[in-house]
Amino acid sequence: MSEVKPGNTVLASSISKKFLKEVDERIQSMVSIKPNGPLLVAFLANDDHAAEMYATWTGRTCESLGVRYELRKIDDKDFLEEAILSANEDDEVDGILVYYPVFGNAQDQYVQQVVSREKDVEGMNHVYYQNLYHNIRYLDNNQDLKSILPCTPLAVVKIMEYLKVYNTLLPEGNRLYGKKCVVVNRSEIVGRPLAALLANDGATVYSVDINNIQKFSRGESLKFAKHHVEDLGDYSEELLQECCQDADVIITGVPSESYKFPTSFIKDGAVCINFSSHKNFDDSVKTKAALYVPSTGKVTVAMLLRNMLRLIENRRKMAGN
Amino acid sequence: MSEVKPGNTVLASSISKKFLKEVDERIQSMVSIKPNGPLLVAFLANDDHAAEMYATWTGRTCESLGVRYELRKIDDKDFLEEAILSANEDDEVDGILVYYPVFGNAQDQYVQQVVSREKDVEGMNHVYYQNLYHNIRYLDNNQDLKSILPCTPLAVVKIMEYLKVYNTLLPEGNRLYGKKCVVVNRSEIVGRPLAALLANDGATVYSVDINNIQKFSRGESLKFAKHHVEDLGDYSEELLQECCQDADVIITGVPSESYKFPTSFIKDGAVCINFSSHKNFDDSVKTKAALYVPSTGKVTVAMLLRNMLRLIENRRKMAGN
Repeated sequence: MSEVKPGNTVLASSISKKFLKEVDERIQSMVSIKPNGPLLVAFLANDDHAAEMYATWTGRTCESLGVRYELRKIDDKDFLEEAILSANEDDEVDGILVYYPVFGNAQDQYVQQVVSREKDVEGMNHVYYQNLYHNIRYLDNNQDLKSILPCTPLAVVKIMEYLKVYNTLLPEGNRLYGKKCVVVNRSEIVGRPLAALLANDGATVYSVDINNIQKFSRGESLKFAKHHVEDLGDYSEELLQECCQDADVIITGVPSESYKFPTSFIKDGAVCINFSSHKNFDDSVKTKAALYVPSTGKVTVAMLLRNMLRLIENRRKMAGN
Repeated sequence: MSEVKPGNTVLASSISKKFLKEVDERIQSMVSIKPNGPLLVAFLANDDHAAEMYATWTGRTCESLGVRYELRKIDDKDFLEEAILSANEDDEVDGILVYYPVFGNAQDQYVQQVVSREKDVEGMNHVYYQNLYHNIRYLDNNQDLKSILPCTPLAVVKIMEYLKVYNTLLPEGNRLYGKKCVVVNRSEIVGRPLAALLANDGATVYSVDINNIQKFSRGESLKFAKHHVEDLGDYSEELLQECCQDADVIITGVPSESYKFPTSFIKDGAVCINFSSHKNFDDSVKTKAALYVPSTGKVTVAMLLRNMLRLIENRRKMAGN
């Protein structure tokens, strides 16, 4: 890891290198069982610019690592489900990915569950989210099959590890102890699971959406080892500012071009991370943040490939090695 | 079935009688394996008036049929998930039901998937929806375990059968052949699956939401025997009126007190059914509709109990009889 100056921007492309190297090594070691490389099938059924860009990166990254990447463009959304179901059943296919939004409404949540759990590299199957919320690391009672994590929340965690927000002197599972984080986004895809992940790792998390602000903290329940959620009140700039006063990390994911997080709310020396495809911080963030990560997409792609390798491993184990 | 006059209102309470009688008989015949009656656990974590009313009906209906009904009120929504998970694991519990909305956003779709598929009397598990869309009737390849249907869409179908919109002279699976239906609501919970069910049974369905109008018709795909969906255009009153011109059935489910379906759009002699908890038709509907069903809740409760009995049967079969 190269040193970075305070106020410096840290690019996802630098952070992802280490992970891509790991993926590369594992793919090399897998050459006997996947002589042509693993096959990742991605479905694009919209003309969203961010999705296209993400599709291009994924393709390039795959190519550089010996992963076969097949982008299947679907002109009529009505045929997307059948196309996914065929890929689910196709033994050649190792991983499946869908670029969202497709329908741009609750139907997208239906589509997420259509992707076979065993090929769901994005980790969007309900089981993966449920395991995340409950801090469950395995899919089976024998602890033989590792669960995976949804790739964007996972990418943010990996970025926070890279930036040393996670303190490795603390025991695993509690390395954010004492840290305060603000997450501006509470989608079911990223914001809520991310807040839960960070709380499960010991942080106090202020989860912000347009309706209200909630506090996620480590749960007391022994049975589920689950975070606890508390309503702090309706959303207001004042309440947000209060939450930010001593926040060590500010994470944004507002899907809007015009939204800018107020720089004046950022504590001097905070870490700022934006996972929205729009720039949620303006350039003045650099006058406050110790470290600033303007986008996370390239780390997300690395996590997606990491998930694929784990899924391949799980499928081999389930097939009886 | 008693005769009804044209223009008459048909109440869900009359329609449900036949189904409740069937449920009663099956519960009687089950007394050796369930001496105390089956146990249905319902979670209420909101103070929605419609939900409370629905909870009361369910309780009364259960009582009259020898079903034990336990309403578990959850004050802090944060504990709902754990409460459902305990009920999932409790062998005493035969069926689980959650009164929605809980969070009133996408988190509700997460909660739906937390309920164990084997106790999900509402039929909201992804597998049940996916089977509905693809016209798949069984959960296993041996065709031993019958799938269930989400209870509100199923209730509307049963109402349409009762009202003789389904023509029993036609072969099963095509009994709506030639019929045109309008469904005003395209939620993932009711509107979209209902449109698919009707299309899979041979109808042409105009599915209406605030954004656009779509046409669902019987699919040509042999593999999945799935309906086809076509976009007709952005929503406008004109387009809606056009779709209604020769519609045999108009079904509404708009969750708004102020919404009223325009009576002038209704074809003389159409069948009108409202599944919203608000009255989506005003009283003038009776001057146009041959048959009018102002609410469906009581049939939904009957379907929910029917689903529970099927789930009990499936669980017995899975346990090896």
